[in-house]
Amino acid sequence: MLTINRLSQTEAHLLIEGARRKAIEIEVPMCIAIVDESGNMISFDRMDGAKITSITIAQDKAFTAAAARKATHEYNAACVPGNLVFGIHTAIGGRLCVVGGGLPVVVDGAVVGGIGLSSGSPQQDMECAEAGIAYLEQHLSNPR
Amino acid sequence: MLTINRLSQTEAHLLIEGARRKAIEIEVPMCIAIVDESGNMISFDRMDGAKITSITIAQDKAFTAAAARKATHEYNAACVPGNLVFGIHTAIGGRLCVVGGGLPVVVDGAVVGGIGLSSGSPQQDMECAEAGIAYLEQHLSNPR
Amino acid sequence: MLTINRLSQTEAHLLIEGARRKAIEIEVPMCIAIVDESGNMISFDRMDGAKITSITIAQDKAFTAAAARKATHEYNAACVPGNLVFGIHTAIGGRLCVVGGGLPVVVDGAVVGGIGLSSGSPQQDMECAEAGIAYLEQHLSNPR
Amino acid sequence: MLTINRLSQTEAHLLIEGARRKAIEIEVPMCIAIVDESGNMISFDRMDGAKITSITIAQDKAFTAAAARKATHEYNAACVPGNLVFGIHTAIGGRLCVVGGGLPVVVDGAVVGGIGLSSGSPQQDMECAEAGIAYLEQHLSNPR
Repeated sequence: MLTINRLSQTEAHLLIEGARRKAIEIEVPMCIAIVDESGNMISFDRMDGAKITSITIAQDKAFTAAAARKATHEYNAACVPGNLVFGIHTAIGGRLCVVGGGLPVVVDGAVVGGIGLSSGSPQQDMECAEAGIAYLEQHLSNPR
Repeated sequence: MLTINRLSQTEAHLLIEGARRKAIEIEVPMCIAIVDESGNMISFDRMDGAKITSITIAQDKAFTAAAARKATHEYNAACVPGNLVFGIHTAIGGRLCVVGGGLPVVVDGAVVGGIGLSSGSPQQDMECAEAGIAYLEQHLSNPR
Repeated sequence: MLTINRLSQTEAHLLIEGARRKAIEIEVPMCIAIVDESGNMISFDRMDGAKITSITIAQDKAFTAAAARKATHEYNAACVPGNLVFGIHTAIGGRLCVVGGGLPVVVDGAVVGGIGLSSGSPQQDMECAEAGIAYLEQHLSNPR
Repeated sequence: MLTINRLSQTEAHLLIEGARRKAIEIEVPMCIAIVDESGNMISFDRMDGAKITSITIAQDKAFTAAAARKATHEYNAACVPGNLVFGIHTAIGGRLCVVGGGLPVVVDGAVVGGIGLSSGSPQQDMECAEAGIAYLEQHLSNPR
């Protein structure tokens, strides 16, 4: 029998909160999606003013990062014509997203979920995703 | 130019909070989705223990209720073989959901969004959806 | 070589105009879709206030009526459990629509297109679809 | 509650009329799609002779421009292998279109809808989309 570690709803909310704070700081309203280690959505928030297209893209970034256990910007770097990975961006009906902004959430060496941001530039999306993970880690190490 | 009223993220969170409290009360972890008046998702939460299938179903209930401006259980009542509405349940790739648990959110006579619940029985889903709307209305009338 | 008769854009607009006039008369804003004899869309209009879900459903009704050369309410009557036609409503990813409101457009004995209405009751949708066809026929017989 | 401005059907028709006039002038029959600020279709026209594939592409261009609040040719410029945006063209089942010819419709600083053209070269599609917007703006500033 396998034992799986998975983000709880509370932890998903911490990820969103950290990402949201960064989004407010850089003044870019974002779509923020959190999925579990199986790629299934736990929580989602569209900040007022975030893009409609980003609703799906944020989810797909989170899905990709968790289910493939790889940051979407890493796929992006490899997904160039001539590289054997090229073409992965159309997989799973296009759900496999290679646009920067999706990060796996790793705790104790295991991927326990994923976070995906969309509405800014990929760099902004990545910055907010990292802020979400930092916020979670801060609370996990100070569990009061 | 048309002028449209739409749920804000804060109001979406109130809807979720009201539904979540009822879900805790009846001890059924739920998937809870909130969409705007155009059917686009604003916020989503999967409570720990809610069903994986309900992730999509909750969203589709909320989408249907807002975008068709009709409760999903009302479609359910009409969607019987021999009735001219029958077949509507497979429309839009199956996104049009006629299972009870999706309600339009009406403020000042206009549909401003939708709420969809899934993981319990349809009656439980409906009860939680109603609780979400009641909780929002209580806060809208006491805007402190 | 086959020679196909197909609605022109002008004729599509006449169909929409006739349907729209009836929709205004019965005070139900409608989504109105016109497709050609191959089921491909020619023209579409969402009247202010029509339903978002009806955008797709109106198109699917028109598609079904033209491409299957059968009114959607006729499919509805046959699509009951136990009848060998039952299940047709899930065909083509659900695009085959058996909800009343889609009519083939027949000129000189041949189906040259389809009209689909959605946002009212199926009976209202059918009434407006018929009004569209009547309006076209009136102009075809008085080609000034 | 958020208050949103959205194209009316009358304004959608002005956008189409402006685009159509340009299409006639350059002698390229076009598919023309207008969506609202949420990406939902308001009006569509396929001019006699326009391409069948363009029925979907015109809609997807309009959807992208409105829902992402960005011209499709701007996405095109960024969507090159090695850029972190690369891969966005397969998002949302391929509905996110990076082919030139989709423009957001901006009124008083807010995106109120989108226009998408397809059947010519991307340059021709863009030229007609711009003509549609110019035609609308001319009528909005002379509201008689």
